[in-house]
Amino acid sequence: MTVEEMQIVLNDMGKKAKRAATALAILPDEAKQLCLFKMAEAIEKNAAAIQNANEKDLNLASENGLSPAMIDRLTLNDSRISGMADGMRTVAKQLDPVGKVLSKTVRPNGLEITKISVPFGVIGIIYEARPNVTADAAGICIKAGNAVILRGGKEAFNSNMAIAGVLNQAAITCGLPDGVVQIIPWQGHEAVKLMLKMDNYIDLVIPRGGERLIRAVVADATMPVLKHYKGVCHLYLDEGFDYDLALKIIVNAKCQRPGVCNALETLLVDRFAAGEFLPRFAAVMKEQNVELHGDETVCKYCPEALPATEDDYYAEYLSLTLAVRVVDGVDEAISHINTYGSRHSDGILSFNDANVNAFTAMVDSSTVYVNASTRFTDGGEFGMGAEIGISTDKLHARGPMGADELTTYKYIVRGNGQIR
Amino acid sequence: MTVEEMQIVLNDMGKKAKRAATALAILPDEAKQLCLFKMAEAIEKNAAAIQNANEKDLNLASENGLSPAMIDRLTLNDSRISGMADGMRTVAKQLDPVGKVLSKTVRPNGLEITKISVPFGVIGIIYEARPNVTADAAGICIKAGNAVILRGGKEAFNSNMAIAGVLNQAAITCGLPDGVVQIIPWQGHEAVKLMLKMDNYIDLVIPRGGERLIRAVVADATMPVLKHYKGVCHLYLDEGFDYDLALKIIVNAKCQRPGVCNALETLLVDRFAAGEFLPRFAAVMKEQNVELHGDETVCKYCPEALPATEDDYYAEYLSLTLAVRVVDGVDEAISHINTYGSRHSDGILSFNDANVNAFTAMVDSSTVYVNASTRFTDGGEFGMGAEIGISTDKLHARGPMGADELTTYKYIVRGNGQIR
Repeated sequence: MTVEEMQIVLNDMGKKAKRAATALAILPDEAKQLCLFKMAEAIEKNAAAIQNANEKDLNLASENGLSPAMIDRLTLNDSRISGMADGMRTVAKQLDPVGKVLSKTVRPNGLEITKISVPFGVIGIIYEARPNVTADAAGICIKAGNAVILRGGKEAFNSNMAIAGVLNQAAITCGLPDGVVQIIPWQGHEAVKLMLKMDNYIDLVIPRGGERLIRAVVADATMPVLKHYKGVCHLYLDEGFDYDLALKIIVNAKCQRPGVCNALETLLVDRFAAGEFLPRFAAVMKEQNVELHGDETVCKYCPEALPATEDDYYAEYLSLTLAVRVVDGVDEAISHINTYGSRHSDGILSFNDANVNAFTAMVDSSTVYVNASTRFTDGGEFGMGAEIGISTDKLHARGPMGADELTTYKYIVRGNGQIR
Repeated sequence: MTVEEMQIVLNDMGKKAKRAATALAILPDEAKQLCLFKMAEAIEKNAAAIQNANEKDLNLASENGLSPAMIDRLTLNDSRISGMADGMRTVAKQLDPVGKVLSKTVRPNGLEITKISVPFGVIGIIYEARPNVTADAAGICIKAGNAVILRGGKEAFNSNMAIAGVLNQAAITCGLPDGVVQIIPWQGHEAVKLMLKMDNYIDLVIPRGGERLIRAVVADATMPVLKHYKGVCHLYLDEGFDYDLALKIIVNAKCQRPGVCNALETLLVDRFAAGEFLPRFAAVMKEQNVELHGDETVCKYCPEALPATEDDYYAEYLSLTLAVRVVDGVDEAISHINTYGSRHSDGILSFNDANVNAFTAMVDSSTVYVNASTRFTDGGEFGMGAEIGISTDKLHARGPMGADELTTYKYIVRGNGQIR
């Protein structure tokens, strides 16, 4: 297929998505709920067809020598199929993010100005291997009144096509126009490049995946992008904190799931805490198989630590490696975090109110923790229900993004003949 | 000066701005108020120096043959100087947009999650000829706790340098670090291009000016941009509305200030209203010297109307020209507006509740009017106090933007040892 032919198909998809979005935008919440329940049911009813498609992807994956971990992520077993359906039902039952009155004022001239939450319109989602994202992302976008155009990873191509088809068909049986859920029907990069120029049809793009994918999307997209580059998360241990509690929190933040964006990557230790804390810390980290990259003082107290370089402070290891640095108090900790961090999730462990207040006020991150693990930065943990991602941007949405963050607003101004 | 030398100066400006932003972010509102009052006073005290610099710009403007209208916009007479100072004082007294608790929840595990408004950090403003924007934009950014890097039009270069210098100096006397207000100290385009790549220092850019300027900024900027392309504003006249009232509103929307973005550009008339309304409308428009570009039916009833082309429906005339089209009811009106409009300000004139509700729900614009002139889309008219611009984007801010829209938020999560 030539680029010109692709463009024609994509334009048609854009038009369909716009039409579907207009219908979705005025759908009452009960109707959206019904539709999401129908979609959940359709996933279960079509489980065999979805799993057949998944089988094709799995065969190709074996042929192409994908790692067992990748193949596991790709596999849609029965429990993952019901997981998708259940996720859809959970999203369905959330509070409607659309139509919230955000503010209402009556001006001296009698004009009544209401600021009300409304859907974006059409959202593009670009994601990597896990095929369940197809259902999860579609569900949350639809709950917020948006149509979606999806672009999944090539490894899950057949699975994604099957899931998206089932969801779109279910929306049609609910009386919605064709185009509520669409998926880019080609695997090559050319199609993504074209998709990212469709700013006349797609109001917002959300890339989900590694930093390379996200930087490529930002470079190409002509529409707004909500994104999350990386999570270089810090904890700062203040003098006088409960060091046993500190160790419990640090082990959780670093080791419970080291491969995720809210896992700990750098520990900062107040100089006055170093002598008492670091030797115990070194022993616990050894037990947990965590490799330490530390500054001079850290290496003195932690005999197996390797010397840290500047690069260690920028690193998102996503593994059992931890950078450790001794700092002169909370101000140096703040300055380190604002210099090397990624504005994701950073915390202070302290019983000193002045230090806690300085830290929460001056650390420029989406989520700032006091005396808790950084692992809580997550839509579910925040009580948002489903999550579409975590934003390290400052514009529009910061931190975990749920259905509320997939809406914008408009002003409705009611008068009785006012002129200026 | 070479590009490399410029880059060094700009990096230094970026660092200064970041440092100033950190100080501003934690400044209590009373201190911000005091600082803005000092800045207002400084403008008045340094009026002579500012007017001397303005004199240089005015002399260059005459030499370069600028139009009298441009020279008028450029001139800083006594009343405009006190206008800048008064504007600063008005912004100072507004409610603090920073530190607002946007939501607060306690999770079942005891974590307390507070969502709180915080400044962006450093805001870049790029604007055209009027030098008073230098003070107005700086004031509103500072009220929202942000440092600013300004880039004004070359015609006002000397005036802008003088005003920015006075403001920054006043901030220093209030104990703030150097760098609260900075201005790009060169006139060429090279400097703007470099500024727009400083995403490590500038958190947000707001261009103010014509569509060409804004498109150029969007194309070059690597940081987020809040922008306003154009205002192709519509009114739709429904059958059965009070046609005298309609004429009053249309005349106001079109003629009170035709050169602004919230002025009327296209009138849509319900087919059932055409026969009674259009002849009277034609007479009033003639009185007001408005040239009509109409479809076939319009041309039949308005003898002096010229035939409209497709381009007329996309046009932002900014002058006494008006496109007029007869449509088959509210659905066609909505579809016309969503196709040809710019998502700025569009209104319905109707006594029919069903039509009003369809219009407000389905017109995809930042501000949707019912029975009022479109001319009210303005920060002052919305009760925001000062305005930094009007956004036709959907991300972050839509419609008029005041100090509140110059903040983002962070989550502060307080625990007592919670782990996952």
